[in-house]
Amino acid sequence: MTTPTAISRYPVPELADLPEDLRTRILEVQAKAGFVPNVFLALAHRPAEWRAFMAYHDALLLKDTGSLSKGDREMIITATSAVNHCLYCVVAHGAILRIYEKKPLVADQVAVNHRKADITPRQRAMLDFAMKVCSTSHEVGDADFALLREHGFDDEDAWDITAITAFFGLSNRMANVTGMRPNDEFYLMGRVPKSKKPEA
Amino acid sequence: MTTPTAISRYPVPELADLPEDLRTRILEVQAKAGFVPNVFLALAHRPAEWRAFMAYHDALLLKDTGSLSKGDREMIITATSAVNHCLYCVVAHGAILRIYEKKPLVADQVAVNHRKADITPRQRAMLDFAMKVCSTSHEVGDADFALLREHGFDDEDAWDITAITAFFGLSNRMANVTGMRPNDEFYLMGRVPKSKKPEA
Amino acid sequence: MTTPTAISRYPVPELADLPEDLRTRILEVQAKAGFVPNVFLALAHRPAEWRAFMAYHDALLLKDTGSLSKGDREMIITATSAVNHCLYCVVAHGAILRIYEKKPLVADQVAVNHRKADITPRQRAMLDFAMKVCSTSHEVGDADFALLREHGFDDEDAWDITAITAFFGLSNRMANVTGMRPNDEFYLMGRVPKSKKPEA
Amino acid sequence: MTTPTAISRYPVPELADLPEDLRTRILEVQAKAGFVPNVFLALAHRPAEWRAFMAYHDALLLKDTGSLSKGDREMIITATSAVNHCLYCVVAHGAILRIYEKKPLVADQVAVNHRKADITPRQRAMLDFAMKVCSTSHEVGDADFALLREHGFDDEDAWDITAITAFFGLSNRMANVTGMRPNDEFYLMGRVPKSKKPEA
Amino acid sequence: MTTPTAISRYPVPELADLPEDLRTRILEVQAKAGFVPNVFLALAHRPAEWRAFMAYHDALLLKDTGSLSKGDREMIITATSAVNHCLYCVVAHGAILRIYEKKPLVADQVAVNHRKADITPRQRAMLDFAMKVCSTSHEVGDADFALLREHGFDDEDAWDITAITAFFGLSNRMANVTGMRPNDEFYLMGRVPKSKKPEA
Amino acid sequence: MTTPTAISRYPVPELADLPEDLRTRILEVQAKAGFVPNVFLALAHRPAEWRAFMAYHDALLLKDTGSLSKGDREMIITATSAVNHCLYCVVAHGAILRIYEKKPLVADQVAVNHRKADITPRQRAMLDFAMKVCSTSHEVGDADFALLREHGFDDEDAWDITAITAFFGLSNRMANVTGMRPNDEFYLMGRVPKSKKPEA
Repeated sequence: MTTPTAISRYPVPELADLPEDLRTRILEVQAKAGFVPNVFLALAHRPAEWRAFMAYHDALLLKDTGSLSKGDREMIITATSAVNHCLYCVVAHGAILRIYEKKPLVADQVAVNHRKADITPRQRAMLDFAMKVCSTSHEVGDADFALLREHGFDDEDAWDITAITAFFGLSNRMANVTGMRPNDEFYLMGRVPKSKKPEA
Repeated sequence: MTTPTAISRYPVPELADLPEDLRTRILEVQAKAGFVPNVFLALAHRPAEWRAFMAYHDALLLKDTGSLSKGDREMIITATSAVNHCLYCVVAHGAILRIYEKKPLVADQVAVNHRKADITPRQRAMLDFAMKVCSTSHEVGDADFALLREHGFDDEDAWDITAITAFFGLSNRMANVTGMRPNDEFYLMGRVPKSKKPEA
Repeated sequence: MTTPTAISRYPVPELADLPEDLRTRILEVQAKAGFVPNVFLALAHRPAEWRAFMAYHDALLLKDTGSLSKGDREMIITATSAVNHCLYCVVAHGAILRIYEKKPLVADQVAVNHRKADITPRQRAMLDFAMKVCSTSHEVGDADFALLREHGFDDEDAWDITAITAFFGLSNRMANVTGMRPNDEFYLMGRVPKSKKPEA
Repeated sequence: MTTPTAISRYPVPELADLPEDLRTRILEVQAKAGFVPNVFLALAHRPAEWRAFMAYHDALLLKDTGSLSKGDREMIITATSAVNHCLYCVVAHGAILRIYEKKPLVADQVAVNHRKADITPRQRAMLDFAMKVCSTSHEVGDADFALLREHGFDDEDAWDITAITAFFGLSNRMANVTGMRPNDEFYLMGRVPKSKKPEA
Repeated sequence: MTTPTAISRYPVPELADLPEDLRTRILEVQAKAGFVPNVFLALAHRPAEWRAFMAYHDALLLKDTGSLSKGDREMIITATSAVNHCLYCVVAHGAILRIYEKKPLVADQVAVNHRKADITPRQRAMLDFAMKVCSTSHEVGDADFALLREHGFDDEDAWDITAITAFFGLSNRMANVTGMRPNDEFYLMGRVPKSKKPEA
Repeated sequence: MTTPTAISRYPVPELADLPEDLRTRILEVQAKAGFVPNVFLALAHRPAEWRAFMAYHDALLLKDTGSLSKGDREMIITATSAVNHCLYCVVAHGAILRIYEKKPLVADQVAVNHRKADITPRQRAMLDFAMKVCSTSHEVGDADFALLREHGFDDEDAWDITAITAFFGLSNRMANVTGMRPNDEFYLMGRVPKSKKPEA
């Protein structure tokens, strides 16, 4: 639909040229999502960093302990990435957020103003904490942990919120400086019922 | 798809109770768009202000002089409304922007970071000026007008950029404080080819 | 006293060249005030926008419902225009504020720091709300409305405060970018007893 | 005209109770100005600090070397005190600025937005430097000194601008925290021709 | 010298309880440094995240390609961690910076104001870029890369600066929220000649 | 250890050329401290200002009334000078703070983030107040004084905190613009037990 555009300011390796472990993982993602999210290719310019990035990503997003749902985690990523003006993460994780939460409007809402989004008070408290970690983490203290506890988040959940915010703050900065471009596919994902989803 | 939610913190008048001129305009809009954008109903709580608002809106957006295309104007609105964290305007005018520019990705791009959007250098200069008007208008001076001129914008265009930014700054503040809710329809508009547009 | 200076970066129309309705209103203002405030001439460069601007202005400042006195409204304009560094509005509306409130010092006080001004606690709460609308309207929520209610302001008053702040935010941006110059007469108005008012 | 109001949150000594040197200076000022500026009384709560304050004040404002006129110095004080939201200094030094510069409008202009004031390009450069010292002195470097030199300011003048800005930054903070109230007389000084000056 | 204090708001595992790979690495560090930097223990509360963190750390700090010396890298960490008000990283990496650069004063200098530090113009440009990545990465663009090139930094170096800044931005947020405490040993490291180093 | 570097952008007078009173004081300081802190020489470029500066300094730091200990005062200076990014004051007063408080770590702690420093709740409240005076003194009001009183600080103590913050805000700006260089000696002072202090 749009003309092809560079997905990074840096050289993007060909799949064939990548180390085996990167290629395997990328092909798995492609098989599952139907396309390769550009972050997998753009960061593959540096395989060692790619491996650490994906290990961190998996440790935070694939773990199944704690009270944060997968939708909660994507909501944190979308909201804080908007603060950091990271196009890649707002678009890509906003898409995943819509899918996990089954709410086609929620990603745009939390990206613009989480205070006006159709979310639960618990999610609102979670995002308030994440926003503070994102912008003024040195001011986070006991009172902030107490506010979380009022909504049932324990200290391990607070760690999760912090780590997700911090890790995607890293990701936001990498994407912003490398000019990482979100795949066109993400923009529409989760906005329309499956049966009506256009091929685009 | 989502449960019905209040479109404003304030009472929203019934169409039948509105003064004739408001009702006529609203029915016209409904006929054209297929639904009534909530701003028409939410602001109708105050008919005198509604009339002034629409007169201002029309003076800026319906005029056919100057070098700003309709897409340019919606782009200014979308970008500056994002700075003001106004959900209504980002969603509603982002939709119109996608349609006018025939670019399904551009609204999300300028809302997150206009520096990374798929827009022309002329549009980039236009948005740079608008962003300064939005945030630090007291610092706008000769150098800013000169930058616009490098891209073919004359002083009348600069007035247009300024007035659009200023007027939607008003609109953003009204929408933020009244909790004005964008119609669900806007979120998807301009994202999919006409033939494939779902009823939703 | 000072040498003549342009009142706008843009062409300023002659009274004789203006549409009848603009000329009539301007002559009325002149008859009442003794001079034509420059905003009437500077914005007349665009008659359609002028009409909408004045209609909005009148809807907000001439209405006689709600609990905001005329002095309250001018106080909101003066305080928020200072935040926006708008010379025209601080000087012109500061003058009207002094006259309505019959307090020669109050305009300078609220322009520099409304927290230290000789105003009532009710006016202090009104300005606190207006300042938040001016600078971070997306953070306005239930707690802010509750603070207003403690001082007897109902939701309609909150709308008035918001709309006045929002409209003059528009005005501030137009004045800042066009370099609108306040009439010299405003600087002294309301500072000295009528009988002693110099011709200047 | 206004009811008597405390000039400081702290106890204000009686003239009779002050050490001889403070009383003598204060009586001299009173003889010259026709009233005692409140800063002399409010700070006299701490005689040792008062003496240092006045010695610093005199060293910066009474010196007759360098290229800064007395009007220039008051202009720096007025502009930077507005940044610091110090009512006392904006009002008191704005008055003296009007008198020295013989320009009844200039104080309000530089207090709201020095970029739009009726001042010389040299004064504009002087204020640009002062504003940077006031807000982000750690970023002042060679380029800023070079800009001053383009307008004929040498390094000693840069020291003067810096020291005046820094000293009144001290004064602004003392006035803000003690709630120091400017004398009513200052508000009108320099606004009307001498012969027409009301007793007020 | 100081009384024992918790090194983290979270439980800190005993060495004996850690997975083999963590314990091995920690013992290696202890053997080399003479003590275990607290970050190794505090983050070990989450072994999976610990492994990703260390892998990322090693990929960025142990690599021997590119033009950034080990001192350069620690300088970036110290300067950007000060912006983020991260006590752990300023103190720990400031110590390593002093040692690598053999400059006992440089860490305090870049932590307070890198513009006044005793560093080379090349290092100044490197830190200017890093500071922008740290605070406003969405504004980084071609002009910033060009400034780096003037000092001999190629695009791979720009990636290194970005990745180090981004990774330690993650680290800063984790340390701030967990209340990670720097080991007392760091404060003095690199400040005194080896022979005189106290046992403390 | 480091090569000699200019201690100021301005000419630094020789001791022999100074007025008698300056030279006497400087020799006294040298006798006591073992070296002449550069501020004494750098500011001596302007003897009249030097005298006022030292008189103010002594009035605030040598007074023995009020509840602020000498360590408290140096803690205020160190914390607020870090906000102002003043290398001279952070390094020089940080050294004195370490000595008075007999805490080798405290200066680095309050300079980076006073919320995480090993200080008493009373000192924390004192620094909270000082930070507000430093950054937004116009917002200081009754509530801030009340918070101080909860920790036993009366209004005279509040004046002391304010005056120290305000005076060193002056000092910070002078040091930043003149490029005042802290003596190398300060960096190590108070970090090691006396007996082990290196000659450096």
